[in-house]
Amino acid sequence: MGADTNGPSGPGPHMQGLWLDDEPRLVTDLPVPTPAAGEALVRVRLAGVCGTDLAVLKGYVPFCGVMGHEFVGEIAAATAAPGRVGERVVGEINVVCGDCAACRAGRSSHCERREVVGLRGRNGVFAEYVTLPLANLHRVPNAVPDEAAVFTEPLAAALQILRQVPVGPDQRVLVVGAGRLGQLIARVLRLTGCELAVVARREPQRALLAAADIPWRSEGDVPTAGFDIVIEASGAPGGLALARRALRPLGTLVLKSTYAGEVAMDLARCVVDEITVVGSRCGPFAPALRLLAGDLVDPTPLIDDRFALADAEAALRRAAEPGVLKVLIDCGDFHRG
Amino acid sequence: MGADTNGPSGPGPHMQGLWLDDEPRLVTDLPVPTPAAGEALVRVRLAGVCGTDLAVLKGYVPFCGVMGHEFVGEIAAATAAPGRVGERVVGEINVVCGDCAACRAGRSSHCERREVVGLRGRNGVFAEYVTLPLANLHRVPNAVPDEAAVFTEPLAAALQILRQVPVGPDQRVLVVGAGRLGQLIARVLRLTGCELAVVARREPQRALLAAADIPWRSEGDVPTAGFDIVIEASGAPGGLALARRALRPLGTLVLKSTYAGEVAMDLARCVVDEITVVGSRCGPFAPALRLLAGDLVDPTPLIDDRFALADAEAALRRAAEPGVLKVLIDCGDFHRG
Repeated sequence: MGADTNGPSGPGPHMQGLWLDDEPRLVTDLPVPTPAAGEALVRVRLAGVCGTDLAVLKGYVPFCGVMGHEFVGEIAAATAAPGRVGERVVGEINVVCGDCAACRAGRSSHCERREVVGLRGRNGVFAEYVTLPLANLHRVPNAVPDEAAVFTEPLAAALQILRQVPVGPDQRVLVVGAGRLGQLIARVLRLTGCELAVVARREPQRALLAAADIPWRSEGDVPTAGFDIVIEASGAPGGLALARRALRPLGTLVLKSTYAGEVAMDLARCVVDEITVVGSRCGPFAPALRLLAGDLVDPTPLIDDRFALADAEAALRRAAEPGVLKVLIDCGDFHRG
Repeated sequence: MGADTNGPSGPGPHMQGLWLDDEPRLVTDLPVPTPAAGEALVRVRLAGVCGTDLAVLKGYVPFCGVMGHEFVGEIAAATAAPGRVGERVVGEINVVCGDCAACRAGRSSHCERREVVGLRGRNGVFAEYVTLPLANLHRVPNAVPDEAAVFTEPLAAALQILRQVPVGPDQRVLVVGAGRLGQLIARVLRLTGCELAVVARREPQRALLAAADIPWRSEGDVPTAGFDIVIEASGAPGGLALARRALRPLGTLVLKSTYAGEVAMDLARCVVDEITVVGSRCGPFAPALRLLAGDLVDPTPLIDDRFALADAEAALRRAAEPGVLKVLIDCGDFHRG
């Protein structure tokens, strides 16, 4: 158990949550967390299972604690801002120190001492309650239902691409991978007017793209050096090789997936072709909420299944099935039921 | 022998040159080349041995023909521009078609059908004569001696970094490698006012940097995540690992070396740290000539040795010795002697 996480069987009132030690297991005797100064206690309403959660289960990062980082909830207590109690919120997942060199240089998402909700040193959202700094919590506009708001974090991650790489109507853009993140990336990129194509393997992925007016391609139908920008969102080494092949010289390859271990690339070829490779991770919440509030992106067709928190272990198993996109976990049953 | 190269024992007047087949060898019966339409015949005065030439010897790219691509010469014949005969020139090494998708998109340095002087499908400059399109040839200002002008191509390659990545006085920049190219890169970067350091292993490299008022560091003295921009110019996998370690999150890693084969990188870490990797190759000649003419960069202290064309094989051996920087080859002995 990390120093910053409250494990099962602590003192005070208890709650249900999905605890990861060696294996994930539902526990019912987690202490309801106590917010630190500047933090709020958030009652989780709905949470989403992310590919990174599944990677954590495979040991991609060492983590022990309550899992999960995608959520929408409501502020249950906030000593420093009592007026915000009852506010429906989503939360940025990096909890930063504000004082290290990265924070002081305005790069707080890379805070050297950061904790990450459900991923590093901090309990996550597959539970009835979570604590987060008030500064991390964004009010959800009334027009955005819980089922859309729960996508704010991955939608922000998709939007991060546009903060790092200018994309416009004069560019040919390929997204490799039409899973959870690839689908959201495609929906964000479509708004730029770029000439977009998405490599999609499975029929349901293709149907979702077609319904969103986004052209898909099979892997065998990707022209070599045919794209100015390629986004790798498959998380598979084969997807990376395809992405590299599809990129033209002087083009930009955006890596949106995390791979386990080292992956070989022909770096001499990267130099000769003068390509740019951009690693891209978390993104801005406020713009993501604006896209949702303006109905510019509708992520809800990506929802494949929904489980009660008591069935969270089953939710993880379901999310790990091939081709399954978003699986949601209702964490608020106990309050609303 | 490639379709575009004239090999030994052809018809017409003959010349000396360093021919690469399986091994490099000096031959004296190369035909003096005949310029095609729009091309000039250039009498080579002075040539430089580049790290890429040595990589070609190791089989990094398959090439058969006259070696060498760094040179200064004078136009000996040019049907399309008789007024330029006698002009002292340096030459861009990519010979492009002007008609492919890359050329039409303004990215002619990545022409899909390009030939590269002394590297791909086109005879090089370790010879008495070379032919090049007139459009490739830049007049050398009188103020620039041959011994400086011969550095135009690698200096342009160093300048390419500034076309790809903005560098200014508010940035901490590390150059890994203080060999031929690293020394030139450091001299170009120094002009930006950035907070510059160069990783230099050898005492003579360090002395050269100190004489140019450029701080050097040993490998053991590089702070982790201490630099906003890191230029990898060592060509060694160990240099790449050091460069990666020295780069801060959200920083930019410029790859200026070509590596043989695939090199493994921890791409998951690149995503988490959101770094940008930029491959960088050839650069603009006119700005490089301006730096030389304005005496803003003096490359001549990098000259370690000088050989007659007749001793070109020895010149290659000398250039391959550890720690040796620039080796020049006098190709004009026969005309000037």
